[in-house]
Amino acid sequence: MVFSSSLLENAVNEFAKLPGIGKKTALRLVLHLLKKEVNEVQLFSDTITKLRKEIFFCERCNNIADKPLCNICADRARKQHMICVVENVRDVIAIESTQQYNGTYHVLGGVISPLDGVGPDQLNIGSLLHRVEHEKTEELIFALNPTIQGDTTIYYIQKKLQDQPVRITTIARGIAFGGELEYADELTLGRSLQNRLPVEKYMSR
Amino acid sequence: MVFSSSLLENAVNEFAKLPGIGKKTALRLVLHLLKKEVNEVQLFSDTITKLRKEIFFCERCNNIADKPLCNICADRARKQHMICVVENVRDVIAIESTQQYNGTYHVLGGVISPLDGVGPDQLNIGSLLHRVEHEKTEELIFALNPTIQGDTTIYYIQKKLQDQPVRITTIARGIAFGGELEYADELTLGRSLQNRLPVEKYMSR
Repeated sequence: MVFSSSLLENAVNEFAKLPGIGKKTALRLVLHLLKKEVNEVQLFSDTITKLRKEIFFCERCNNIADKPLCNICADRARKQHMICVVENVRDVIAIESTQQYNGTYHVLGGVISPLDGVGPDQLNIGSLLHRVEHEKTEELIFALNPTIQGDTTIYYIQKKLQDQPVRITTIARGIAFGGELEYADELTLGRSLQNRLPVEKYMSR
Repeated sequence: MVFSSSLLENAVNEFAKLPGIGKKTALRLVLHLLKKEVNEVQLFSDTITKLRKEIFFCERCNNIADKPLCNICADRARKQHMICVVENVRDVIAIESTQQYNGTYHVLGGVISPLDGVGPDQLNIGSLLHRVEHEKTEELIFALNPTIQGDTTIYYIQKKLQDQPVRITTIARGIAFGGELEYADELTLGRSLQNRLPVEKYMSR
């Protein structure tokens, strides 16, 4: 791409650094901002800088927070003895959006993946084990992606906690709503058969 | 989407205002920026604000510029008596990127479209007519999208210039390189037959 303005070129290059944004999309976004009022563009910029400068990672669960302790950990109405273990902040938002969970979270920051050089020490596993021990956690719910790495992580943490009086569960795997049996992979279909539910329980959800 | 941080929520909402960016994509982009160093994020913000505040629209051709006159208009090595008429800045960038054009541009800012309430007065047509008259323009090349609106715009401007000694042309319509004859629409295929080229001319390109 050949630009006749270096201001434009710089802005396009900055946008094109974002994941999944190519040069053409970047140009479209920048030209859109150019049509906006100065104060709107200023607000856009300020909001992003402010986020980066003022954000906290919750000292208890590592979730993104406005204060040292996140809203979820600080909310005494939530079940403090229940921890849902997730890979990242996006998963917290996804689960919160279901409005079906009323406990706390623990954000691992990834899953164990030796091929990528990620071992237990690179993740927030130590702090999780510490929490379970000191917070009298009653239930630990793993909500990790169903991959080899996710399963390895569950196995590792579960081993470390085998002497603790904590109930360890994982979210159900199965055929998604709207999914079609014939296109489901064998592992999912097999697991969903093994873990079949009484119809009364299924209907009462 | 339910957020546990209002800083995060604000930033996601700002990104989601951009065209073609939904909430999920916005979240992905914001979380990406959160992983960057503060000075990198600051640079991103500053570049965008600076662009919006310091940009010029070339007083001659309406292209985006760093100065009152854009680099292309200011470049005396370019053919000043040749004007390529385009709809917007993206088209200037597309044509410049071909490195096949060495004249000036005129950015209309749109095309005549009565249904959308866009008439000749909403576009930079007056300044184009003025240029042709006062700059002794030798050739006007229309590089507009092949739509009814584009053709209407060409027709309108051409009528206005019928008493001027200027050669008026339009970029060729035809089968795109890599395109397949059988999938081409009838109009394009028909026009490309009517405007067929001697093979010598085609090969020498």
